[in-house]
Amino acid sequence: MKTAVIITIGDEILKGKIDDTNATFISRWLHGLGLATERRVTVGDSIDDIADALMHSSEAGLVILTGGLGPTDDDVTREGFAKFLGEKLQFNEDAWSKIGKFFKSRDLPIAESNRKQAMTIEGAEILPNDNGTAPGIFYDAGKTIYAVLPGPPRENRDMIENSLFKKLKERDLLTQDITTKIIRVYNTGESAIADILKDYRPGCGIGYYFSQEGYVEIHIIRAGLDRKQNLKDVDDCYMEITKRLSANNIDFTENRAQSLILLEFLKSKKLTLSFAESITGGNLAGEFVKNAGASDALAGGVVVYSNESKIKLLGVKEDTIVSHGAVSEQTVKEMTIGLKKLFNTDVCVSVSGIAGPSGATDKKPVGLVHFAFMFNDELITRKEVFFGSRERIIKRTVNYCYLEILKFYKAV
Amino acid sequence: MKTAVIITIGDEILKGKIDDTNATFISRWLHGLGLATERRVTVGDSIDDIADALMHSSEAGLVILTGGLGPTDDDVTREGFAKFLGEKLQFNEDAWSKIGKFFKSRDLPIAESNRKQAMTIEGAEILPNDNGTAPGIFYDAGKTIYAVLPGPPRENRDMIENSLFKKLKERDLLTQDITTKIIRVYNTGESAIADILKDYRPGCGIGYYFSQEGYVEIHIIRAGLDRKQNLKDVDDCYMEITKRLSANNIDFTENRAQSLILLEFLKSKKLTLSFAESITGGNLAGEFVKNAGASDALAGGVVVYSNESKIKLLGVKEDTIVSHGAVSEQTVKEMTIGLKKLFNTDVCVSVSGIAGPSGATDKKPVGLVHFAFMFNDELITRKEVFFGSRERIIKRTVNYCYLEILKFYKAV
Repeated sequence: MKTAVIITIGDEILKGKIDDTNATFISRWLHGLGLATERRVTVGDSIDDIADALMHSSEAGLVILTGGLGPTDDDVTREGFAKFLGEKLQFNEDAWSKIGKFFKSRDLPIAESNRKQAMTIEGAEILPNDNGTAPGIFYDAGKTIYAVLPGPPRENRDMIENSLFKKLKERDLLTQDITTKIIRVYNTGESAIADILKDYRPGCGIGYYFSQEGYVEIHIIRAGLDRKQNLKDVDDCYMEITKRLSANNIDFTENRAQSLILLEFLKSKKLTLSFAESITGGNLAGEFVKNAGASDALAGGVVVYSNESKIKLLGVKEDTIVSHGAVSEQTVKEMTIGLKKLFNTDVCVSVSGIAGPSGATDKKPVGLVHFAFMFNDELITRKEVFFGSRERIIKRTVNYCYLEILKFYKAV
Repeated sequence: MKTAVIITIGDEILKGKIDDTNATFISRWLHGLGLATERRVTVGDSIDDIADALMHSSEAGLVILTGGLGPTDDDVTREGFAKFLGEKLQFNEDAWSKIGKFFKSRDLPIAESNRKQAMTIEGAEILPNDNGTAPGIFYDAGKTIYAVLPGPPRENRDMIENSLFKKLKERDLLTQDITTKIIRVYNTGESAIADILKDYRPGCGIGYYFSQEGYVEIHIIRAGLDRKQNLKDVDDCYMEITKRLSANNIDFTENRAQSLILLEFLKSKKLTLSFAESITGGNLAGEFVKNAGASDALAGGVVVYSNESKIKLLGVKEDTIVSHGAVSEQTVKEMTIGLKKLFNTDVCVSVSGIAGPSGATDKKPVGLVHFAFMFNDELITRKEVFFGSRERIIKRTVNYCYLEILKFYKAV
């Protein structure tokens, strides 16, 4: 099976001045087309380093180079490519006339330094650039196909999705079909999931990815020529994994933001929502409104960070706070009752907790959170202790609320 | 001069599922310390590919590997490293007891699969991991030093900046002294900043980095053996740059989150704060409370997403909304007056706008935001149009508010 190598070129990448988003884009694009990227390499603007990286990649079916096609002296990708091939660069009239047209269409004078960008290798084809001056180079060396592309993301992507795609299709380099399905698993570590699945040998690849958002993604993937078989294998695998997760009482959802899954569920049932937030300080509503159409479900909320505001806005009894504390089941209950009076939504959620680093007591550690949910007239409370930094505890609290609402309605 | 090679490991990177942010971070970190990255390589979770990448990097003074140290079968970086060295992996009791402690401190059961993470090479040192289970490996092979680090960014960065930094210093791989100062510049593009500084030739390096958060960082950096001279040069440069920014009415702050700068300022002046949020839907308060001690300044706020809640909670007149619209100067003024009645804080802030993608009208485009600030009895309004996605417009609105408060008090 043929594989690809991506070589990105540029001192600015090696100095960490910019993220190498081209490499991510190309990897994802190739993966979607069923062509695996075997390796990615980044080298600086150096003829020798470029030639060396090419030398080390001669086993690949496709090598994509990006960057270093500009008009200035430090752009030497053409020279590195020519050195590797043992060829001389030659001036290409057709490329030069296209560059000329690009400048003319923008009413700009063409600089002599741009002549450099019309240099290419004998036997190579030119990939036109509609978004900039540097044409790309396509070179079929038999065992390996080479594509040399400009670095600016817009030029790069457009050339890949249009002219490079056509050329690769012509050469049957993109033949496989890939099917993927992703499951998000909450409140459970990678190793615990691996334990649950350890005796399972599916016909698909399984990968685990821990997300910075605090959940684990299980990726089910199947590559092969028979699309129908791929789909069936992935579905079988998905059924077995979700069955095992359910049997172990592990929470999971499809692969979208919980706030979005919640929003769509609430919209489909025409349910409205409000929040009374102490520990999360606005983040429960704040995450939710990042989804377009949030106003279809969210009426609003209150951020009651101080005891005084809990009393004044939500009618929490001063006595309750004095005897049970602001972080207590009793307080979140009263917060929710007050919230219901203010917004009268179908779902009312209140949270109070200790995000840390300070504020803990002997009986109430950092990470302790009390929750109260009111679903129409049904009041439910929960209590959890989350670990990690202040930000992580807030994030966990937010996701916990979204998931509990979905669980109450058996929507996950 | 010695150079570094960075090898990142993970099928998820080669599939384009995640950006390789570790490679960017490490490149920038090494560059800041005066050690050039010669090449970056990404390979998949394959013992042979990892060993091959190491083989091809033996000329470097430092090789940093990241990723593939998890407990599951697809994590094989230790195995690839051992294969390259021609060594066998051995179980390390000390590492295992540290992993055990990590689980215990979180009251979690340790899985058998985690034993894998305690495997290391004879003669290697263990780099402790305070943020996860996988310890790092530090191996001095004489000509080349190897550091094998976990992939999750938080674990990765913490290990680099703390334990790896110390070990490299001990070995004189980082001999120079480096002084850096960073300025955050708001509402101004990189090229405009470059224009202001174009005739300035400082004794320091200057770099510009556009942050995803929507501001530009100016990095002033000076490497040299004389620490005192470095400090003086960086200070001189900082003074000149900030003088020029001020002269051009460009907003800037030191290099910390605006919400944190605001919190510390409010605390120092014993000022209190509340928010009435429509467009930001909780994010104004939500970002602010991510800082420890936020409750010293923030009393609370209301999220008034619906017109009804603006009327009921804040006493906005129905007539105002009908004749001026919910997104109008008049409405945010009345929101602020209502907010002041609820919380009676020194600073009251209200925002209403159109986050998109829908909701725009002929006269009110997506991105339009009305602001009202009440500083004690002084009411000030602002109006801006921000560009970009829904999330970006919300983020810009949040940062704009924090900065306006600081500007009112002449604290920036």
